[in-house]
Amino acid sequence: MPTVAALGEVGVIARLRRQIPGVPSVLVGIGDDAAVLRGGGREHTLFASDMLVEGVHFRLPTKRGLTPFSTFSRGLTPPRWIGWKALAVNVSDIAAMGGLPTHAVVSLGLPRTTPVAFVDGLYQGLTRCARRFGMSLVGGDTVRAPVVVVDVAILGRVKPEHLVLRSGAAVGDRVFVTGCLGGSLASGRHATFVPRLTQAQWLVRRLPVHAMMDLSDGLASDLWQLARASRVAFQIEARAIPVSRAGKTVRHALMDGEDFELVFAVSPQTARRVPSSIGRVPVTEIGVVSRRGARVELMDAHGRITPLIPTGFRHF
Amino acid sequence: MPTVAALGEVGVIARLRRQIPGVPSVLVGIGDDAAVLRGGGREHTLFASDMLVEGVHFRLPTKRGLTPFSTFSRGLTPPRWIGWKALAVNVSDIAAMGGLPTHAVVSLGLPRTTPVAFVDGLYQGLTRCARRFGMSLVGGDTVRAPVVVVDVAILGRVKPEHLVLRSGAAVGDRVFVTGCLGGSLASGRHATFVPRLTQAQWLVRRLPVHAMMDLSDGLASDLWQLARASRVAFQIEARAIPVSRAGKTVRHALMDGEDFELVFAVSPQTARRVPSSIGRVPVTEIGVVSRRGARVELMDAHGRITPLIPTGFRHF
Repeated sequence: MPTVAALGEVGVIARLRRQIPGVPSVLVGIGDDAAVLRGGGREHTLFASDMLVEGVHFRLPTKRGLTPFSTFSRGLTPPRWIGWKALAVNVSDIAAMGGLPTHAVVSLGLPRTTPVAFVDGLYQGLTRCARRFGMSLVGGDTVRAPVVVVDVAILGRVKPEHLVLRSGAAVGDRVFVTGCLGGSLASGRHATFVPRLTQAQWLVRRLPVHAMMDLSDGLASDLWQLARASRVAFQIEARAIPVSRAGKTVRHALMDGEDFELVFAVSPQTARRVPSSIGRVPVTEIGVVSRRGARVELMDAHGRITPLIPTGFRHF
Repeated sequence: MPTVAALGEVGVIARLRRQIPGVPSVLVGIGDDAAVLRGGGREHTLFASDMLVEGVHFRLPTKRGLTPFSTFSRGLTPPRWIGWKALAVNVSDIAAMGGLPTHAVVSLGLPRTTPVAFVDGLYQGLTRCARRFGMSLVGGDTVRAPVVVVDVAILGRVKPEHLVLRSGAAVGDRVFVTGCLGGSLASGRHATFVPRLTQAQWLVRRLPVHAMMDLSDGLASDLWQLARASRVAFQIEARAIPVSRAGKTVRHALMDGEDFELVFAVSPQTARRVPSSIGRVPVTEIGVVSRRGARVELMDAHGRITPLIPTGFRHF
């Protein structure tokens, strides 16, 4: 009988790995909206995950019954919305890289007492979102947990010429956002938003976009992420920021979080070719990249400039 | 200014998708150890996820301090072990498909009071496992949660000729397992096991393996999964089952779960070429595929045959 010799397990795997060409290498790892993996083909693979936890990202009734639509007014989230949101936040990450989502797996933690109708609602939301963006749910895991946990991992693909990172903003660039910001949690938009895939695709297919990310923690906090990644300073005009009806004030638009709109930077020449709306979603110029060095500043109506501190949604 | 016309978002995405060739299609979706996606290249992509939850898959001290090695005797799990286990269970899934793991993303749910040293320990375990199996941790998500939740999503690759599903067992096949079964939770092996990647690779590169899966819920329960997927009956010989020292009895070997060994089926001709050990891990013939129709039977030392009911680890 043949057996593997004294090489040992580690040695065997190392050998196997050397023998097989075409291991996708990591082009971008931890720190952007998604990892970028170089595959064998013409396109790169995008890979990301986002976890939603009951009591942190959504609320359920204490009796753990069905959450009818009407309960939303009490700050509760219908299961369909939770399912939609769990996938949509991931689609938003792929969109922000200039990519298209293709497949997802869903890991679900559920308390023993969860009604089947809750899971049905959750899957309805997940499958509706998958269908809307032409992607497939291909597997996952279901385990017991003390609260509901939904973790989605997503795969996407992107042509190298469409890939946009957080790190490409340059001095002189103009800064834009899609949609209107603020009040996402209050209005329920945080769980029903449409990821800006159409808008991102429109942009990366026609224009050289220097840097892009999706807004999850709040414009102020997310601009800091972009500023650090690109090592540049953003100067944002307060009165240019598009405030949503639920957001009401510029302060809310800066701090609330969970907008899932896009913020992006393009050269002044390209800025002239950015439309005022894409697919009925407004696109608004809100500021400039003023100089080198990570910093975010706000200019008020009187031209006074104050530094913006990186607050917004606190994860812990 | 150009804008996207009345096509609408859904229409636009559908159009984009039609325009771009090479969308990986789903070869195997929900229901096997991993999903199989047909990519552009010569190899298929494998995609899976597994979630571990505190209090369900591992225990921490109530004061949420560090878990020193010594606390294991009280049924607690050191953070390094949790990290190792979180990735190892996923590597085991990829191995069972005949593939090699390449990349993973980690979603982490943590209570506010979690000591940084706990997270350090967890990442030590994750990175040690990643290094051992030559793969990259490329991103993920970290959020607040009432208990520790670790969800890993994994990517792997497999040559079409090496791919092994659960559904290929045929009447007359011989059934084998790697390693020794039972007592995994009691011995701590459930969190320190070495996924059988070397063994799986040895097999799929040399022999036609009809069906394979990894043992997570217990041999009895997992054989039922294989029986249902292949629509065949397994007849297992009780005295042939390799019982681990911690497992003690055949009953434990059948029911305990979390073994993360491989069970596989090959033709009688191929069975003669299966070695008695691969890389120092024993490989044992435990039974046959006796006839068509999903069923699992146990033959005792006196030749008496009794049906095995599909019990084992209960997820809820």
